[in-house]
Amino acid sequence: MTGISHLISKRAKSRVSSHFANAPSDQPPKGFKPHEKPLLLSYGTPNDGFFPIDSIDVNLVEFPFEHQVKFNNSMENLSLNEQKKNSIHIERHSTKPNLLDLSRGLQYANVEGHKPLIEFTEDFIKRTHPPAYDNWSSILTTGASDGLNKACDALFDPGDVVLVEEFTFTPFLRFSQNAGAIAVPVKIDLSNDSNGIDFDYLENLLKNWDTSKLPKPKALYTIATGQNPTGFTQTLEFRKKIYKLATDYDFIIIEDDPYGYLTLPKYQPPKKNQFDLKDHLTLDDYLKNHLTPSYLEIDDIGRVIRVETFSKLFAPGLRLGFIIAENSIVKVIKNYGETVNRGASGLAQTVVNNVIRDKLGGVDGWLEWVLKMRATYSHRKDLLLHTIYESEAYKKGLVDVIDPKAGMFVTFKIEFLQNDPNIVAKMKELLWKVISYGVSVVPGHNMTVDQSFSTERSNFFRLCYAPANNDFEIVESGKRLTDAVLEFYENGEKF
Amino acid sequence: MTGISHLISKRAKSRVSSHFANAPSDQPPKGFKPHEKPLLLSYGTPNDGFFPIDSIDVNLVEFPFEHQVKFNNSMENLSLNEQKKNSIHIERHSTKPNLLDLSRGLQYANVEGHKPLIEFTEDFIKRTHPPAYDNWSSILTTGASDGLNKACDALFDPGDVVLVEEFTFTPFLRFSQNAGAIAVPVKIDLSNDSNGIDFDYLENLLKNWDTSKLPKPKALYTIATGQNPTGFTQTLEFRKKIYKLATDYDFIIIEDDPYGYLTLPKYQPPKKNQFDLKDHLTLDDYLKNHLTPSYLEIDDIGRVIRVETFSKLFAPGLRLGFIIAENSIVKVIKNYGETVNRGASGLAQTVVNNVIRDKLGGVDGWLEWVLKMRATYSHRKDLLLHTIYESEAYKKGLVDVIDPKAGMFVTFKIEFLQNDPNIVAKMKELLWKVISYGVSVVPGHNMTVDQSFSTERSNFFRLCYAPANNDFEIVESGKRLTDAVLEFYENGEKF
Repeated sequence: MTGISHLISKRAKSRVSSHFANAPSDQPPKGFKPHEKPLLLSYGTPNDGFFPIDSIDVNLVEFPFEHQVKFNNSMENLSLNEQKKNSIHIERHSTKPNLLDLSRGLQYANVEGHKPLIEFTEDFIKRTHPPAYDNWSSILTTGASDGLNKACDALFDPGDVVLVEEFTFTPFLRFSQNAGAIAVPVKIDLSNDSNGIDFDYLENLLKNWDTSKLPKPKALYTIATGQNPTGFTQTLEFRKKIYKLATDYDFIIIEDDPYGYLTLPKYQPPKKNQFDLKDHLTLDDYLKNHLTPSYLEIDDIGRVIRVETFSKLFAPGLRLGFIIAENSIVKVIKNYGETVNRGASGLAQTVVNNVIRDKLGGVDGWLEWVLKMRATYSHRKDLLLHTIYESEAYKKGLVDVIDPKAGMFVTFKIEFLQNDPNIVAKMKELLWKVISYGVSVVPGHNMTVDQSFSTERSNFFRLCYAPANNDFEIVESGKRLTDAVLEFYENGEKF
Repeated sequence: MTGISHLISKRAKSRVSSHFANAPSDQPPKGFKPHEKPLLLSYGTPNDGFFPIDSIDVNLVEFPFEHQVKFNNSMENLSLNEQKKNSIHIERHSTKPNLLDLSRGLQYANVEGHKPLIEFTEDFIKRTHPPAYDNWSSILTTGASDGLNKACDALFDPGDVVLVEEFTFTPFLRFSQNAGAIAVPVKIDLSNDSNGIDFDYLENLLKNWDTSKLPKPKALYTIATGQNPTGFTQTLEFRKKIYKLATDYDFIIIEDDPYGYLTLPKYQPPKKNQFDLKDHLTLDDYLKNHLTPSYLEIDDIGRVIRVETFSKLFAPGLRLGFIIAENSIVKVIKNYGETVNRGASGLAQTVVNNVIRDKLGGVDGWLEWVLKMRATYSHRKDLLLHTIYESEAYKKGLVDVIDPKAGMFVTFKIEFLQNDPNIVAKMKELLWKVISYGVSVVPGHNMTVDQSFSTERSNFFRLCYAPANNDFEIVESGKRLTDAVLEFYENGEKF
């Protein structure tokens, strides 16, 4: 069996896109010659002269939270900062290659996205996660949710089966449901050095699959790096084993990776303050020794659909992401865009493309920004873990945490509920205690494919150190959380 | 029968949205008190300190095509223009009510859109097309296509019937198909003073509907102002008659209005140049005497779904529009957003909201901008018609045009193909001639619900004067078009 086109859904294959304003499809009559300078009375596209915006200046920072430094420093430093103007100018009309001007960025555009930005995403993947085959490409999305929904539409017809990590980004379940697919949970190994997915469980599940009950799975959905909610990251060796299963049992891997570029070193007690970015990695070291390889890098046939987003590394409000996949899959995803919902905002594409190309200097410059984000996230992660490690609840063995290798999530385990017969009820009561202490967390049981399947592994909260405004809030959150657990425990496991 | 909720699709009604990071749904235990200053370890939202953009300056023009005046004028005037700085500054953090700052605009947001912009669209509708009932609201979309697709999803289950003007914006047919609906064409009256829809045809169709063949229609889709492609506008009296049919036969009206605010006076020979906007209307005169009332204004129950967009009046690349509908419909459209694709780009929302509120001064200021657009479009329309009226083809009676009362489309009729037995084949051949003369137009037969139903009315092209760069191109396009038709005719109706 070669290729993966037999795994594309009937619905996706059946879509045809065409535009009523295109040239007639019949052959031109004899003697027809195209005009050298044709004019348009066809498309309903307003000329860019109707756009009220003449140009846009985007003013940037050099590193995350720079505005807090500005705010904290004296007026003297502030004016110094302002002198060093750090901005890009987006014109109505520009002839610079690879930059988008407003006459393009604010105009109707192809659903797959503007070419300079698509090419950037392809160059970015070649640098970070080069696929092991050739006929792949990138298509823009309006963020990871849109990407996942489109991936589901591309693969699943009603009744098809998708394997999903038992604790997961639950909106995926709605997207697979939209396409009519049935989600089957895969056990996660929650021990501290786990790869996430319980390999033996998955292998047995596939080996003993009863096709009289359900058709064999068409795809596995996995957040392989900094898994949501558990934070686990699959090693390259582990991915090779999973990929072999995908080949043997002929299924697609949907690899969702919203923040895997935020690799995190092993815990060490935090010393620096949040603005100290001097110790960050060199790009070479990062790419060779820290960034976990994607499934793309072991995929020699196009069996992987990789879903990325600019939400976590640039900003969520852009509503901008992209999918890397084999060309036949990209084609049906493009048809979905043309027949269901159009593409991403051209304004968002223009700002991201030009910030990256005009200011940061392309792929490597963008990665340098990612390294600064990574340094800040790494500091935050260590600060949160440090606060937990120093807590009475931890020292008494009431709680444990899993030190994540990437991303923004930490598994916070309630050890004394490990084998409790009423885990979910107690976790719900504990959550009220945590909330009353003034911190919100996500209970694992809210993020299951099937709560009853996962009950005995639901004694954890997902913690996220991304939204905090500053170091103080992270430390304070950790204290409140561990104090709440301690009081709950000392009160006889009651509120 | 009261209300319209019985017309909502089963699919849309069945959708439930919830977020895994929300508070537990159970009752809090006795003694629970919420914390006064809660901190977040829950949502996976990056703090705005991670956003690389610190602020944005949006530089505006005072009137359409101002940049061409600048370009044409001397350097002296240019620097004068530049001195009068016409821009808005969008900050990372702002406390100004009704303005969006980047910490909100670039962050995750509700799928229905940011509150200030939703409220603007509601205030705008109250000023221009006040609905005749109370329980309506606005929800943002990623443009008219997204709005139409969501309207179809909200109404149609597989096998439902939707009535569609026989010549139409054909992407609608894909959206209704996505929901499984069957589109039935409604005849258009193509005579010069028509309202578009052939009322008698529609009334008879409904009166004699055979429910043993197809279920009775659930909705009528109409572009009631500046119809696409024909350019017709329905009068208020005509809309009242159609609305009565909707009540009598219990169907929804999907009113698609992308550019109806661009009202156009009756043709007069163009004198002024394109930059002369002095003769534009006062706002009061425009609202009272020029703007055609929407179906909303005669809708006392919520039977109308109005689909608007910022594409034609601001810019298409924003991917931003909105829907005005009865609250139960808005609710299922919101659920679609939460379970299928997320909302519009927050960056686009921020730019549009702040340009309109911070610079133009809200609803009336925005309408003043629309009046400037209208003056430019009106000039362009008259210029194109003038060129056609002056042509030999017109003077010989070979062609006719319909003077549109709104929008951006003109019906250009090929009179000598009126009763031709091979209309479509000849129109296709004529199109090649037109293309060889260096102008592209859209043939009516490309925009039919059912080409065979509409064959005898397909002897026209749709002309659009929106994309041209300047007056010269409009005149030149009209000349090329009429010359091509003349040659085709003189060559024995052959290429």
